[in-house]
Amino acid sequence: MSIRSTRVPLPSISPLPRIPLSHVPSFYSCSTAIDLATASHPAVTASLPLIPLSLPHLCKVGAPPKSFVARDLETNPSRTSCSMMAALLRNKARMANLSWLQPLLLIPRKRPIQSQSNLWPEFKGEEYMTKKIQQINKALDEAVPLQHPTMLHQAMRYTLLAGGKRLLPILCIASCELVGGNQSSVMPIACALEMIKTEVLVLDDLPCMDNDDLRRGKPTNHKVFGEATSILASHALLCHAIEYVATRTKNVSPDRLIQAIAEICSAFGSKGVMAGQFADLNSEGKEVSLSEVEFIHKNKTGKILEASVVCGVLVGSGNEDQIQILRKYAKCVGLAFQVWDDILDITGSTERLGKTAGKDLLCDKATYPKLMGMDESKKFARQLVAEAKEEISCFDSTRASPLHHLADFTVSRNM
Amino acid sequence: MSIRSTRVPLPSISPLPRIPLSHVPSFYSCSTAIDLATASHPAVTASLPLIPLSLPHLCKVGAPPKSFVARDLETNPSRTSCSMMAALLRNKARMANLSWLQPLLLIPRKRPIQSQSNLWPEFKGEEYMTKKIQQINKALDEAVPLQHPTMLHQAMRYTLLAGGKRLLPILCIASCELVGGNQSSVMPIACALEMIKTEVLVLDDLPCMDNDDLRRGKPTNHKVFGEATSILASHALLCHAIEYVATRTKNVSPDRLIQAIAEICSAFGSKGVMAGQFADLNSEGKEVSLSEVEFIHKNKTGKILEASVVCGVLVGSGNEDQIQILRKYAKCVGLAFQVWDDILDITGSTERLGKTAGKDLLCDKATYPKLMGMDESKKFARQLVAEAKEEISCFDSTRASPLHHLADFTVSRNM
Repeated sequence: MSIRSTRVPLPSISPLPRIPLSHVPSFYSCSTAIDLATASHPAVTASLPLIPLSLPHLCKVGAPPKSFVARDLETNPSRTSCSMMAALLRNKARMANLSWLQPLLLIPRKRPIQSQSNLWPEFKGEEYMTKKIQQINKALDEAVPLQHPTMLHQAMRYTLLAGGKRLLPILCIASCELVGGNQSSVMPIACALEMIKTEVLVLDDLPCMDNDDLRRGKPTNHKVFGEATSILASHALLCHAIEYVATRTKNVSPDRLIQAIAEICSAFGSKGVMAGQFADLNSEGKEVSLSEVEFIHKNKTGKILEASVVCGVLVGSGNEDQIQILRKYAKCVGLAFQVWDDILDITGSTERLGKTAGKDLLCDKATYPKLMGMDESKKFARQLVAEAKEEISCFDSTRASPLHHLADFTVSRNM
Repeated sequence: MSIRSTRVPLPSISPLPRIPLSHVPSFYSCSTAIDLATASHPAVTASLPLIPLSLPHLCKVGAPPKSFVARDLETNPSRTSCSMMAALLRNKARMANLSWLQPLLLIPRKRPIQSQSNLWPEFKGEEYMTKKIQQINKALDEAVPLQHPTMLHQAMRYTLLAGGKRLLPILCIASCELVGGNQSSVMPIACALEMIKTEVLVLDDLPCMDNDDLRRGKPTNHKVFGEATSILASHALLCHAIEYVATRTKNVSPDRLIQAIAEICSAFGSKGVMAGQFADLNSEGKEVSLSEVEFIHKNKTGKILEASVVCGVLVGSGNEDQIQILRKYAKCVGLAFQVWDDILDITGSTERLGKTAGKDLLCDKATYPKLMGMDESKKFARQLVAEAKEEISCFDSTRASPLHHLADFTVSRNM
């Protein structure tokens, strides 16, 4: 679906190609828009050859564009770029005596009203996820090469490359791109998040912990390599992750990189995942309160989701406000994710989950369904997702659509 | 013992106080020296008030000094500072018509010949070690506070604060100070090295690994807290260590800090300690060659000693040459340390070692005594220490005396 525009007929110009909205580089939440597609039509650019090149921000997607829509936005923190562009065009038009361009530039237009559930129909959530997962899997494969000692590295790669939702790296990349960063700069951190997440899962499956036989649809790491090698590989993967971030991240200021490293280590440490894991293990077979369950989930899942989005914003040169907004988004998504995990543990099948279903019940673990019932848990999870989306409503919806989709995904997945 | 100097009698000046050599800020290896103590005597500084302040490098220890010895050095990479200072003094003397200062500045003096074992009698090795260990223990205690979840943090602190040689942090601090850095800047990294070393030991003691009951003279971590908590605490300690470096290091450029983090993670990862541990575990009960034993030891011990000195040099703003020199030193000391560990496993008592003696023999591990015999192993270890000292002979010996002592310590310790 594309935005309809009111066109001023141009003299001697053939019909303009329409571009779908999903291809329009739109960085900002918009309330009104000015359709400038015509301005870069061959007949116009012949007179104004500098225009497309003078709009680096608006032309990021497939530069130089054949045509584009520029938006003038009320909530746009960088509206200067847009206004400056309009001023430039106006000036060029005046100098080139293209008086017909003047009214074209000033046509205000309302954003079409769309339902919340169908905000950006051009964004294909599943395609997006599939593409990102492929890119992340390729990057992970390259990031942990098979080298000497071979079996140790096999163990490091085994669970890491066994598939998985790749939620943390996708969140990290989407947050980075949301604030204007690019995927190549953030990929080492995205990979590191998945490496550390994986090694926590490997430890989690050990006999002295959750004692699980199945992970990501395959026998658990220690079942294949033995406990000792699994523990060494797990430790090595954590070290490798941080080293990888420190040595492979390009085009990011060292200051921001150090902040990102601190964020990751804090999230996976004794005030994050490890605190959650510890409380989780100690809750087995005990009466626990809702606040204790919340403590477990916030720490086991929430903090690493937070770290993922914060690292994305840091690498994307985002500001402190954006970090705070995405933190809140991640808190909601993280909790929703864990509530849904609890639900799936009861409703899902082992085959589909890729891990043993019903483990929580078996271990008498503290879960949401146990405490508030199945229906209330589902309602709670969906409410959290709505809150998460509300938190990021200040961002341009096109650009934020991956994060909208990721929030929805947490409570629609069946694995 | 202090360097004797030839003095030119000064007119109307009371006897000069002698300063012990250990208090002399000497940054460079010296072959000849010029005694300039007289130049900062009150009677002289009255005429030359700017002199002491114009020598920031030479006056680092207790500035401004009452008197000092400046050395002109053949192997000194920064000899300009010293030569410039002499030129400045000569110029001042000429301008102030202090003709008596001229010959004084030019008195060449041989460095007194001293035996290798008694190079710097002012340096008290044991006092130095005791003081550093106290400072490091205090810093570690503060670095890992007891907080919620309490038992998890107790487990993190238990083995960490149970004593130990603190070899890595001392090496790190000594290397930093050797190149002109200060202890406060390097302490977070020094602490992190000990944290990660400790958590590797905790993992090493697990039933599926070395299955040990005693560490640092106390029951092993998993004996007290259980395997699951030990593993979580171990993981948390590694995360905390890196976070601590990233958030608490002050007055170090972010670039160097990132290099240091990469160095540490590499040393403790799959191409360092974990590679050594893995090979070690897999050598049990097998026929292994000398080169395989060397691989184990270089990775298990060598690389973390290397990382310790390299981080020290990085924080101390040392250059690439200094890093390379200290890397070689650490390779030798690291191997000597591990050879001596193998020897102590046979000759030491459980009580003195603080860990179970005779474990290597019991597990039929690859060790130096097993392969080359006890006498040859001792000889080899001492030869490595001599090589280590030779590597750092280009540094000023006073400043390098902690590193000399640490090298000697590896093959004289009984624990």
